[in-house]
Amino acid sequence: MIFFMSLWSILSRRIYLDHAAATPLRMRVFLAMAFVLLKNVGNASAVHTEGRSARQIVTKARIKIATTFGVKPTNILFTGSGTESNNLSILGYLEQLHKSGLKYEEMEVITTRIEHPSITALIPELKRRGVVVKFVEVDQFGLITRGSLINVLSKQTVLLTFAYANSEVGTVQPVHALVRIVREHQKVAGTFVQIHLDAAQAPLWLPCSLSQLGVDSIALDTGKCGGPKGVGVIILRDIASLSPIIYGGGQESNLRPGTENVPAIAGAAVALAIAAAKHQERAKIVASINKFAQAYLKEKLSQAVINGPRQEDRLPNNLNFSLPGFDTEYAVIWLDKQGVAASTKSACAGAGGGMSQVVLALCNDQSRAKSTIRFSFGEDTTRREVKKAIDVLTKYCAKMVTIDQVGD
Amino acid sequence: MIFFMSLWSILSRRIYLDHAAATPLRMRVFLAMAFVLLKNVGNASAVHTEGRSARQIVTKARIKIATTFGVKPTNILFTGSGTESNNLSILGYLEQLHKSGLKYEEMEVITTRIEHPSITALIPELKRRGVVVKFVEVDQFGLITRGSLINVLSKQTVLLTFAYANSEVGTVQPVHALVRIVREHQKVAGTFVQIHLDAAQAPLWLPCSLSQLGVDSIALDTGKCGGPKGVGVIILRDIASLSPIIYGGGQESNLRPGTENVPAIAGAAVALAIAAAKHQERAKIVASINKFAQAYLKEKLSQAVINGPRQEDRLPNNLNFSLPGFDTEYAVIWLDKQGVAASTKSACAGAGGGMSQVVLALCNDQSRAKSTIRFSFGEDTTRREVKKAIDVLTKYCAKMVTIDQVGD
Repeated sequence: MIFFMSLWSILSRRIYLDHAAATPLRMRVFLAMAFVLLKNVGNASAVHTEGRSARQIVTKARIKIATTFGVKPTNILFTGSGTESNNLSILGYLEQLHKSGLKYEEMEVITTRIEHPSITALIPELKRRGVVVKFVEVDQFGLITRGSLINVLSKQTVLLTFAYANSEVGTVQPVHALVRIVREHQKVAGTFVQIHLDAAQAPLWLPCSLSQLGVDSIALDTGKCGGPKGVGVIILRDIASLSPIIYGGGQESNLRPGTENVPAIAGAAVALAIAAAKHQERAKIVASINKFAQAYLKEKLSQAVINGPRQEDRLPNNLNFSLPGFDTEYAVIWLDKQGVAASTKSACAGAGGGMSQVVLALCNDQSRAKSTIRFSFGEDTTRREVKKAIDVLTKYCAKMVTIDQVGD
Repeated sequence: MIFFMSLWSILSRRIYLDHAAATPLRMRVFLAMAFVLLKNVGNASAVHTEGRSARQIVTKARIKIATTFGVKPTNILFTGSGTESNNLSILGYLEQLHKSGLKYEEMEVITTRIEHPSITALIPELKRRGVVVKFVEVDQFGLITRGSLINVLSKQTVLLTFAYANSEVGTVQPVHALVRIVREHQKVAGTFVQIHLDAAQAPLWLPCSLSQLGVDSIALDTGKCGGPKGVGVIILRDIASLSPIIYGGGQESNLRPGTENVPAIAGAAVALAIAAAKHQERAKIVASINKFAQAYLKEKLSQAVINGPRQEDRLPNNLNFSLPGFDTEYAVIWLDKQGVAASTKSACAGAGGGMSQVVLALCNDQSRAKSTIRFSFGEDTTRREVKKAIDVLTKYCAKMVTIDQVGD
């Protein structure tokens, strides 16, 4: 049991509720990485014993991940981060189309307005190249609306990308239903639409099987499921569908050059295997913690408005809510001082200032978008910890109201 | 002392002569990384204690590297590999020029024909965008010829890139003299030429100071100087001179998005500080091993032809030679079986088959380019190890000649 946890979780007395930003490293992952760091010397492209040993570790990790997700080892690509996985899956696909003769101006890409910065920051770059970017609507829960998807698909659509589970509000998209709409459209239009899924938040809680989901590529970030930072994974249906976006040696089927990050790759395989193994049980346990948290929050802070989807469409470890009128940037700092780590929005969307663009897109209410708090639980988060976090927040709100009243 | 070495070097009985491809991890670097892996949890963009602690590790590492190379912390960028550092320095610079209104067709880039794959593989991509790529000549030693550089510079030249020290034959370019030619040209032409240095092989043996070298950007690869794989460093004169080549969060001054690889960054700082600290003494010691190796090679294998520069222009740890008529791909496998790790060429240029394009460019002799062996020594390589390696190779050659004779 202890090997599935992190040393930090065991020793620290902190209440860490920011697992959507980064997870503690599991002991088993650490041991796998430490072993490689100490023992493995070679460059995986070298032919000698040291090189072959490095190659073997990378190959074994690739097989382990392929087995975990029910694909062939050739369907697994390693990159340097979740961000790079999204970039390579999207830019690499459009580049490959471009090389095969399609003009950028003839390509339409569909996405939502509530994606992670590693997708939203790509949009200006796509437009700069001439690609047409269209947005599919999401409802107040963050769910892609089927009607809107049908409307926005066209003969020019080459790619659809969205997050499996939204990193801020935890909306889990009905991937099957959306994929079915796209595949139906394809039949009628006689075209092909690549479907890319940003699954950075998924492996601990949701199935990530390519065939089960019916998508063409899935980007994973092991730093968000008990594994190391500095490595990303793509599960890719067709290796020939991408072009590289960085240029160099022939590593990763000529798609991602650079000396393989052998220890991180070894760690990634262990983390993803553990994450996927018992994701259903884990999801159930954390969902019950989440249910408790929501009830306790309502009880203690009646002004709290929960953002995002209903429980059945929500990532089990996500609880995003607003405290309209309160400075939640400061609330997070206050929580931190009392031993609770939480956030207002996605870490990649920048620390400090600014409202949540995701929540704004959902409810079009600035006071809610300005006052978000995101709790993202871990598999070891307890009721006691959740209670403590909400108690601290309640004290903060009481204190702030007092100050407001004094100010009047 | 033991902390400066790797556990592997101490325990292994192998003779590892492929330090140009990958170096063992120093114990001190491992300890720095292990500490971060176990203790550090947060995303460096988060505002809570865990996030700030991650940010602090990244900031300290940046300051340490800046101090090591005599620049400001803002001059240091972290990437995911040496390959990505070269790509961002070159593509990112051209993208920035393009965004500021210069057409690709109006840009000329100068490089050599003996660069690492992370540069040579960029060339078709640059051409595809419309950039004109010109090659400056190198002489039989791999040295860029000054006359050729003067000839190839034009009013359209926007960037010059070359390797500080060639990874295959170890040629150390006369950076000062080349930079002076470019800066003189600038004055006359009234233009500016960005000079990028691929210094992947340099930190253990050569000074890597931006101001001392007079260049605009330097790419480093810590996996080749006792540090971790999966992290690259750019020393950059002007942060505003680049555009990102991957799109996402605002990390690394908006130039390289993705959650920071905190443990690898911490390890990189330790490795680079140790590498730079005593590079002159280290270079002297290894140069004397190299001199011994060359003499012993001449004595045992008179047919060996040394490739690359004279000793004074050679990376102290590089010994590249050809055994014309011999199958050196197989020789490397034979050496490996006898406990010696060596290579035929750069690991990124692909394991197995094919001649060395670098050696071919230098001597235009296919039999030499097909029969290369590269020994790249480490700081702990001993005369006894070198002697053993050459003895094994001598036995190989004797055996092969016998087989040839039987075949006749």
